[in-house]
Amino acid sequence: MTSEPANTVTTLLGEIADVGRDAQRGGYSRPVYSTAELDLRSWFIAAAERRGLEVLTDPNGIIWAWCGPERDDSLVTGSHLDSVPGGGAFDGPLGVAAALAAVDELRARGVQPGQDGKRSLALTVFPEEEGSRFGIACLGSRLLTGAIDADKARNLRDAEGNTFAELSARNGVDPAYLGADADSLAHIGQFIELHVEQGRGLIDMGSPIAVAGSILGHGRWKFTISGQGNHAGTTLMVDRADPMVVAAQIVLSVRKVAAAQEDARATVGRIQPTPGGTNVIASKVELWLDVRHPDDAVTAAVVEKIHGQAQIAAANEGCTVTLTEESLSPTTGFDAGLQAELRRLLPGAPVLDSGAGHDAGVLAPYLPTGMLFIRNPTGVSHSPEEAVENSDADYAAGALADVLEGLL
Amino acid sequence: MTSEPANTVTTLLGEIADVGRDAQRGGYSRPVYSTAELDLRSWFIAAAERRGLEVLTDPNGIIWAWCGPERDDSLVTGSHLDSVPGGGAFDGPLGVAAALAAVDELRARGVQPGQDGKRSLALTVFPEEEGSRFGIACLGSRLLTGAIDADKARNLRDAEGNTFAELSARNGVDPAYLGADADSLAHIGQFIELHVEQGRGLIDMGSPIAVAGSILGHGRWKFTISGQGNHAGTTLMVDRADPMVVAAQIVLSVRKVAAAQEDARATVGRIQPTPGGTNVIASKVELWLDVRHPDDAVTAAVVEKIHGQAQIAAANEGCTVTLTEESLSPTTGFDAGLQAELRRLLPGAPVLDSGAGHDAGVLAPYLPTGMLFIRNPTGVSHSPEEAVENSDADYAAGALADVLEGLL
Repeated sequence: MTSEPANTVTTLLGEIADVGRDAQRGGYSRPVYSTAELDLRSWFIAAAERRGLEVLTDPNGIIWAWCGPERDDSLVTGSHLDSVPGGGAFDGPLGVAAALAAVDELRARGVQPGQDGKRSLALTVFPEEEGSRFGIACLGSRLLTGAIDADKARNLRDAEGNTFAELSARNGVDPAYLGADADSLAHIGQFIELHVEQGRGLIDMGSPIAVAGSILGHGRWKFTISGQGNHAGTTLMVDRADPMVVAAQIVLSVRKVAAAQEDARATVGRIQPTPGGTNVIASKVELWLDVRHPDDAVTAAVVEKIHGQAQIAAANEGCTVTLTEESLSPTTGFDAGLQAELRRLLPGAPVLDSGAGHDAGVLAPYLPTGMLFIRNPTGVSHSPEEAVENSDADYAAGALADVLEGLL
Repeated sequence: MTSEPANTVTTLLGEIADVGRDAQRGGYSRPVYSTAELDLRSWFIAAAERRGLEVLTDPNGIIWAWCGPERDDSLVTGSHLDSVPGGGAFDGPLGVAAALAAVDELRARGVQPGQDGKRSLALTVFPEEEGSRFGIACLGSRLLTGAIDADKARNLRDAEGNTFAELSARNGVDPAYLGADADSLAHIGQFIELHVEQGRGLIDMGSPIAVAGSILGHGRWKFTISGQGNHAGTTLMVDRADPMVVAAQIVLSVRKVAAAQEDARATVGRIQPTPGGTNVIASKVELWLDVRHPDDAVTAAVVEKIHGQAQIAAANEGCTVTLTEESLSPTTGFDAGLQAELRRLLPGAPVLDSGAGHDAGVLAPYLPTGMLFIRNPTGVSHSPEEAVENSDADYAAGALADVLEGLL
């Protein structure tokens, strides 16, 4: 193995601070298989190889960096490198950088995964965790586990019309082999994902780290509202069937229904009128709905209520509306035994539920998984304002090393 | 002069029926200086040159095809070849094809512009009439007349960040010479634009053609609403400052205010959330407003009322909103003398006001202009459903030839 001076999380993230910056939105735009995300993958692979880890990309495009021989029931940690459009620097990369730094720290402590009777350790990078490009979050881990049908995944299209199969092929992943991968899955004995917190919980608790309790159930739906495209100047107000007016009513329904339901979160962050010209009444508007709640039945009820109100609004405007489910994940509790172990290894760390979905949540039904959240002083995420103090980022690597050492 | 078999409007439009088709939106997307619009320009230039016309492109990118020597006080007819996104086949190209076919018809009649004491005739194609790419409608005619400042035009940016100056330069138009062009303007003694009707007026009147009375005043404004970008799953509803919710309220205000004001038309057909991810509360939403009314004071009052309601909605959500005017044209009456002449030359043609803006309206304050509208059996425009019967299209060329012959 090469001897490499240890990097801190801060210096590691500094190496990629210029990759995928978004001049228009601020922050970073690193969609899966974009130049930016590919640059980040290369960066990770180089960093892992410099540490003497054996790196390979599996049939679903998930990167594995092995510390110790590749084998079943290993301890695995990792996160993702893709981002939402205009996202922050930490959502994903913090967990990847902390994993690299934790390897350095374990070596400094003389801990050798895969030797002396210890389990092997692997670092992973999952593709399309955000679903920003192909619309389905955690696509890599869903493929790995078979939670998404491979054919459905192959045919997903990005905004430019490329299929996921085409993009995979273009990036060295044969789309014929996408899908449930029992061999790779069997390698994961336990999975730990370290992630920036995406809310204000740890600020209020005064702790730099928390152990995850559960992940809120959440889903994505798409409304398609069809009306009558026409000229904005020549069409009298009474003659209109304007899907934008219906879309506006849906946005307000979403707010109203979610605000009235304790613990519900519902959002419209994406809307696309067709044709989308200033002087044109739209013929069609698509809008995407994100809903989350700890109780999956409530999530379904919230969506149904919004759908009902949308149908009334559409009928009043002479438009039609259809609702399609794009993805749906139930509320997922993390493995209780592993959770207790993490709390023992990180004395004083509180337990925090997550409103956000993660690859760890997708893996949870298949094997013991756990998550660690790192304090975010702005409480803001999916935004350029997402933040982690340098001291907390570097602390995270030590905490992760403690956990890995304890579990190995 | 070359002898060329005459084309009908229908066969001419048939030649370009495949240029710039929009598979996603339906219809045509032919933004200025796109491959599609450049192909249409080449088509027009070739068709004019086959007819022996002398073709040149002026400093603002306006194409002139001369029938008779280039000189002042000529009779000019033309329209545009660019389209809105997903527009119809006739908005623009009908007037250009009718002008070419009318030249054939004049020759068949033995009428020789620029000879025997007759005025010269020129056919024109104006760039960026729709404002679909750079946001300002009738940009070519506004530049020609000086109605828009050349520096402002040079710095307009399309959605990809290209400036109008860059696009002009890339297409052989030196941006240094953009702007008011007294020489070219002096060539136009009278301007006639033939155009598809963009409403149902001629269906109800049972006539294939109308003479334009006036163009409704209209303007475009942009609302920019700023809030707090954040994670859709981790941010409680009460903690949100979501600009999409404010945008929805603005869309509904627009509908309500316009519906309450006789003869007003107000539309939101374009909206752009930033960053625009399904699982992200937007940090910013831009939306564009199109308002028209015969009385310019009412247009201003409608916009002000909507703006006031937008400010209240923004304040309630913890957001801020700014309103910027992108363009504003007063209600424009066409030259009364020329209008009377057109009605004399087209006995029985009714007079019809236009809710849509046109290059003829931009030129109207500077010289006598007139317009002819051709019946649209769907009444729909700026949409793939825009239509003209073949018999009406071919009739249009004869009617335009009657008018040109009478005015020459």
